[in-house]
Amino acid sequence: MTKTVLLIGIGAGDPDQLTLQAVKAMNRAGIFFLPDKGSEKAGLRAVREALCRQVMTHDRYRWVCYDVPQRDARIAEYRARVAAWHDALADRFETMIVEALPENGCGAFLVWGDPSLFDSTLRIIETVRRRGVSFAFEVIPGITSVQTLAARHKTTLGAIGEKITILPARLLARGWPDDLGSAIVMLDSGAALERLRTNTELTVLWGANLGTGDERVISGRLCEVFASIQTARRAIKEKRGWVMDVYMLRRETGPGGETARDVKDERFPPMTD
Amino acid sequence: MTKTVLLIGIGAGDPDQLTLQAVKAMNRAGIFFLPDKGSEKAGLRAVREALCRQVMTHDRYRWVCYDVPQRDARIAEYRARVAAWHDALADRFETMIVEALPENGCGAFLVWGDPSLFDSTLRIIETVRRRGVSFAFEVIPGITSVQTLAARHKTTLGAIGEKITILPARLLARGWPDDLGSAIVMLDSGAALERLRTNTELTVLWGANLGTGDERVISGRLCEVFASIQTARRAIKEKRGWVMDVYMLRRETGPGGETARDVKDERFPPMTD
Ligand SMILES: C[S@@+](CC[C@H](N)C(=O)[O-])C[C@H]1O[C@@H](n2cnc3c(N)ncnc32)[C@H](O)[C@@H]1O
Ligand SMILES: C[S@@+](CC[C@H](N)C(=O)[O-])C[C@H]1O[C@@H](n2cnc3c(N)ncnc32)[C@H](O)[C@@H]1O
Repeated sequence: MTKTVLLIGIGAGDPDQLTLQAVKAMNRAGIFFLPDKGSEKAGLRAVREALCRQVMTHDRYRWVCYDVPQRDARIAEYRARVAAWHDALADRFETMIVEALPENGCGAFLVWGDPSLFDSTLRIIETVRRRGVSFAFEVIPGITSVQTLAARHKTTLGAIGEKITILPARLLARGWPDDLGSAIVMLDSGAALERLRTNTELTVLWGANLGTGDERVISGRLCEVFASIQTARRAIKEKRGWVMDVYMLRRETGPGGETARDVKDERFPPMTD
Repeated sequence: MTKTVLLIGIGAGDPDQLTLQAVKAMNRAGIFFLPDKGSEKAGLRAVREALCRQVMTHDRYRWVCYDVPQRDARIAEYRARVAAWHDALADRFETMIVEALPENGCGAFLVWGDPSLFDSTLRIIETVRRRGVSFAFEVIPGITSVQTLAARHKTTLGAIGEKITILPARLLARGWPDDLGSAIVMLDSGAALERLRTNTELTVLWGANLGTGDERVISGRLCEVFASIQTARRAIKEKRGWVMDVYMLRRETGPGGETARDVKDERFPPMTD
């Protein structure tokens, strides 16, 4: 195997979230693969070019763009639709790796946050490998938006001895599960949080565009702070053209503000040790 | 407020997992606080001294050690015992911040992995703040062992559109919950995985001492690879004096190896969108 593909996590907003390992990996690359998401292309590229200016020690590298197909709205089931979309992307990845990447060459995908957290690039590269295209493949972890959120709010992700749950917002479509004490929620268009706003038991630790100049963080009882979150979200979107937010929800029960994380979860009984 | 305390995530084993942000933060520190865990002290210090040699651009810093008290075995309930232990640690933190850290000084705790993931340093520092000791406090995220595990196995943490669960091993004391499709497990002494070894539905992606020279990774059906995991675990422990492992478990159902993550979780019904 002579070609190498690197999947490099670049952190979730702040260029200084790059690890020393990521910097070394980037310097091995001669090609950076770049998604062309239409109107977002300029922004995506600007962020990545700025990273390269910051850390590259040579200039023997170039950008290879691939267009990102639309998801096929005619496929009704969510996972089937995503799978079809991944296959279409795998076609593009395959072409780039076979045609644009020279023998002994090294190409890199720069992935927002960490490649293992709600990102499909890894799956698509593995699909290309399964098709029989031969190349070495390495994954370099990156700081996630979840960790950045926790750092900004100076909080841990879980209560002592309890489980940690990370949810895509769509799983909250039918409201907050009764037996869930806390969760970190990603990929919300705004609808999930809005749906929960009347739940007076929930406390929120919210953050948008973390690590960027537009960063905003807000915390408090959801029913009390929801309006300001919505205002902040809209203001960032208006100013920057995009907004991404992540938040932690905790169910508080009792007047002392004990979190429901201290309440028995029947599926995970507390131990005496 | 004139004193500053930094809580810096240093990654989970490989010094190159340090972020550029962590390097800058370390260089602001004049004092590094170091836990003295008896026999582990030399090892803990060696790792941190090596980091400093690698990234410090000045030598105006020193080490301040604090002893780590034992947990009080007479306290039967797990969380109460941990809370008492945190209070005892907060006493030591308070003394160091009040007495060892000079006015306008900056002191840093170098935390393994990320400060938000199953680590108590953050909670203890917040306890000292609540006691009325005045200082600025910043948290710098670090790469976790969970991300490192995912990177080594070239896998994502969750299936498309599904939740991600991270469990302390003690929550698996009564076995694998029926409705759990996958989880990442930490803090196992070896007992939890051993208890699950006869569950023929489980697939494991395992890693020990990730990012270090002793790193080992193993994957496969748990019932088939458990013995080699146990052997590898013991060999590392014998050679290095310590072993830490983290693993992902997935319940596979059906002959095609569909993971149970594709199976309905009644608490989070699948959506048509
Ligand atoms: C497709 S996922 C990718 C996550 C990324 N791989 C990570 O490690 O954070 C995008 C989601 O991540 C979250 N996110 C990413 N970057 C963020 C940021 N800078 N501030 C707030 N949320 C962010 C949002 O929930 C967003 O909907
Ligand atoms: C007290 S927790 C601290 C976790 C740390 N804050 C992090 O972000 O990974 C210790 C647990 O983390 C996991 N762990 C930490 N470092 C590891 C490594 N290098 N290899 C494998 N597991 C590790 C193990 O499950 C261990 O029991």
